[in-house]
Amino acid sequence: MAKKVTGPEIERLIQLLARVPGLGPRSARRAALHMIKKKEQLLGPLAAAMSEANDRVGLCSTCGNADTSDPCTICSDPTRDQSVIIVVEDVSDLWALERAAAMNAAYHVLGGTLSPLDGVGPEDLAISQLVDRVSAGGVRELLIAVNATVEGQTTAHYIIDQLGDFDVRITRLAHGVPVGGELDYLDEGTLAAAIRSRTSF
Amino acid sequence: MAKKVTGPEIERLIQLLARVPGLGPRSARRAALHMIKKKEQLLGPLAAAMSEANDRVGLCSTCGNADTSDPCTICSDPTRDQSVIIVVEDVSDLWALERAAAMNAAYHVLGGTLSPLDGVGPEDLAISQLVDRVSAGGVRELLIAVNATVEGQTTAHYIIDQLGDFDVRITRLAHGVPVGGELDYLDEGTLAAAIRSRTSF
Repeated sequence: MAKKVTGPEIERLIQLLARVPGLGPRSARRAALHMIKKKEQLLGPLAAAMSEANDRVGLCSTCGNADTSDPCTICSDPTRDQSVIIVVEDVSDLWALERAAAMNAAYHVLGGTLSPLDGVGPEDLAISQLVDRVSAGGVRELLIAVNATVEGQTTAHYIIDQLGDFDVRITRLAHGVPVGGELDYLDEGTLAAAIRSRTSF
Repeated sequence: MAKKVTGPEIERLIQLLARVPGLGPRSARRAALHMIKKKEQLLGPLAAAMSEANDRVGLCSTCGNADTSDPCTICSDPTRDQSVIIVVEDVSDLWALERAAAMNAAYHVLGGTLSPLDGVGPEDLAISQLVDRVSAGGVRELLIAVNATVEGQTTAHYIIDQLGDFDVRITRLAHGVPVGGELDYLDEGTLAAAIRSRTSF
């Protein structure tokens, strides 16, 4: 702003909020003002929740999930089939797959994909930890649920190479038409995969 | 989520973030995850900034601006012309006008507009406080910068009625074509106002 209209505390709050994904400089200002107006209902509780998350949340040393306990809620859940590990790039992928609620398994977060151009090598990802988990035994299946991108598939093949000696079933997600998707808007690769993997009514 | 994948602290953070304007349930989850990954740079500082804002920010008892000091930065600024008061509906309007940096004046935040259907009467707005400020003397001009809506204009006329006895110049914002605006997309009322208020090159 051209002149000071308010104290530095609010400006600082706006600047930090503008760095939250989904908010820009303009919406950060709107959000800050809304919070200040709803101090009791929003600003106070949110400050407390953030402070608690900042103090207590970390990454699970086994699977890489973000949680307040280590091992995390998933790794220490006795009702989950810990012999099946779903390998994902990011914690957000783990959460997305959990929302689908299709599989009651354990996870392993890689923390990214191999990308030589960006200087991301195998040692930057949690691949050796995955090999350790498999070699420790008790793992029946590894579902490699990386993104269907070139980097994701390269990473998948690298992991499969590393695990060649182990007696473990390695699977991947099916390709096909998204539920609710319109054929007209889909790319040829997806349509070809959906035709090849067609199923009977 | 169908099953618990993480502690209640993160779920609570996501739920609170989803109530911030500009974020929905999905982007709140993404924002929370981003913050957890950037604890040092974002989550910690943001928690501290919110906590400080929660402790220290209030509304100025003179003009209604949100600030950490009372009277606020604007009301206690000796370089501003405190004899000109810009009357706005909301703090966000005050901030918007300050970004334009067109006038070095004081403000008065009404806190809304008259709206009998919603049960908002004159006693719910800071109108009597405005009359008090004017009757205390030293006010030369009142720029009523409410929104160009029916409620805004009704409120403006009510305020003008209340101030009929005072020797103060009452002005309003000009109507016209927005800078950068295309005539084709403007409504007839705006175009008619722009023609009536045309100026010489």
